[in-house]
Amino acid sequence: MKPYCFGVDIGGTSVKIGLFQTDGRLIQKSQIRTRTENSGAEILSDIAAELKRLCTEHRMDAEQIAGVGVGIPGPVSKKGVVHGCVNLGWGERDVSGELSGLTGWAVAAGNDANVAALGEQWLGAGRAYQSIVMVTLGTGVGGGIVYEGKILPGSHGAAGEIGHMGVLAEESHYTCGCGKHDCVEITSSANGLVRVAQDVLAESDAPSAMRELEILNAKDICAQAAEGDALAHKAVNITCDRLGAMMANVACVIDPEAFVIGGGMAAASELLFPLIEQSYQKRVFPNLKGLPILAAELGNDAGICGAAKMILTEL
Amino acid sequence: MKPYCFGVDIGGTSVKIGLFQTDGRLIQKSQIRTRTENSGAEILSDIAAELKRLCTEHRMDAEQIAGVGVGIPGPVSKKGVVHGCVNLGWGERDVSGELSGLTGWAVAAGNDANVAALGEQWLGAGRAYQSIVMVTLGTGVGGGIVYEGKILPGSHGAAGEIGHMGVLAEESHYTCGCGKHDCVEITSSANGLVRVAQDVLAESDAPSAMRELEILNAKDICAQAAEGDALAHKAVNITCDRLGAMMANVACVIDPEAFVIGGGMAAASELLFPLIEQSYQKRVFPNLKGLPILAAELGNDAGICGAAKMILTEL
Repeated sequence: MKPYCFGVDIGGTSVKIGLFQTDGRLIQKSQIRTRTENSGAEILSDIAAELKRLCTEHRMDAEQIAGVGVGIPGPVSKKGVVHGCVNLGWGERDVSGELSGLTGWAVAAGNDANVAALGEQWLGAGRAYQSIVMVTLGTGVGGGIVYEGKILPGSHGAAGEIGHMGVLAEESHYTCGCGKHDCVEITSSANGLVRVAQDVLAESDAPSAMRELEILNAKDICAQAAEGDALAHKAVNITCDRLGAMMANVACVIDPEAFVIGGGMAAASELLFPLIEQSYQKRVFPNLKGLPILAAELGNDAGICGAAKMILTEL
Repeated sequence: MKPYCFGVDIGGTSVKIGLFQTDGRLIQKSQIRTRTENSGAEILSDIAAELKRLCTEHRMDAEQIAGVGVGIPGPVSKKGVVHGCVNLGWGERDVSGELSGLTGWAVAAGNDANVAALGEQWLGAGRAYQSIVMVTLGTGVGGGIVYEGKILPGSHGAAGEIGHMGVLAEESHYTCGCGKHDCVEITSSANGLVRVAQDVLAESDAPSAMRELEILNAKDICAQAAEGDALAHKAVNITCDRLGAMMANVACVIDPEAFVIGGGMAAASELLFPLIEQSYQKRVFPNLKGLPILAAELGNDAGICGAAKMILTEL
């Protein structure tokens, strides 16, 4: 194995790049703007230029680089082809082929949620395990599955789309981004907690500190719940209950060793995790009770770490 | 590759054995009694004797046998070790090690539901696909996942335990065999349909041909539903609705190419499949609409076929 590799995490605003030793040590991080103008035509050549610049800076030979892994905010085929990525302005792009052509290195590309899961499994909260499910609680509920040390992308790149599991007994009056009305994402993302809190407030006349907030957001709702506000706690409990139900359903399908929960809301893990675990324990197939539920450790670096690991597992 | 292999399907009453060409052609089937007495002490030696008898009958050299795959009605570790199998009277048994010692051949062992799924993927309804989920509607709801041509057993042998997915909005007054009250198995197995029909009859005063039946069973309920009995159709609809909900949830986790439905109830596929599909289509993550839902083709031979394939994929 050559001694170095790159992990690249392409986002709608910036591209994060990590230069790694192939044993997992991060040597340097770098960041460039994502030029989405002109249908994102320059994104890959900008990345290639930055990778070469980093090589020069560290006086590395092209020969010392094992390859480049790339995480992309959209579905990616097994061959590293993107079929449309709105956030980057892309239609169909052969990311692996093009970036490999620009750099001369082997390139592997994958969906960013899956890549982040691989990062946590390699160097983060899941490093003691080979098979984990990562749940990312952000604007929506993202998911990624690592099975026996590799990303499990599914047959159409849709494995781990667990934010769209139906766990609401009645169709919600909210519509999920996917068009359905029963997704866990409706109640259990950061935005979902806000929705639940709004409903809880509307259905009750009881006093709540939440009524004093100008704009409801997940962080403040969690803070109020932690301070004992009954309605805030009710909202948090609904959010966590549905999340635990989803995780129990995931467990009986893929049977992971552990769950890793990341995203902005994981910052409130002391409040949320016991409630999630309570719901999970109650609902899961008994043989799978007690699986560890861990807080993600890598934050925004999960993407570059996982991308680096992805190219290493494919070589 | 050597030209022949064996597939062995151990059940609580009988052991089914298939002698296969390694290209998938079934040369001969055989069946022996499962001697569960004395903690099932003789089961593996009985199998070894029958395998040798079949070799002799076909004038085959031991050298021509690539190996033996074994399906077992219980959880099996990756190394082929069983940790207790009630139906066979077994405590911990190293099935792979013991049978390999008795025969001199390579042996792989797996859970019977997973093995049957592999059989359908290799030679049955799923042969056009690499990744399928098999749903078996029998006494309970069984499941098995084949991902990219291999059984996906999970970290604790519990992957594909999809009969225990929670899809009931309210806890049932029935208790699942696993101890929970929300499993799809409660409503959507052959026994589940009977439970649902009993509840539908109890909740209504409307006439139904089901009231004339001395003993309710799934086959008769399906027959009445097909003839237009409103309450029977209502029961069938509930059973299929919950099954479709479960399959939609499975799809967003593992993203298969197709579903294969087997077990006794699949005989009523003309009645059941359109209702299952209607529920699935309504509930699934939109990118996964329209996955084929196929009737199993191998019946009781799925086990021996999948067992044979399992040893071939491990060699």
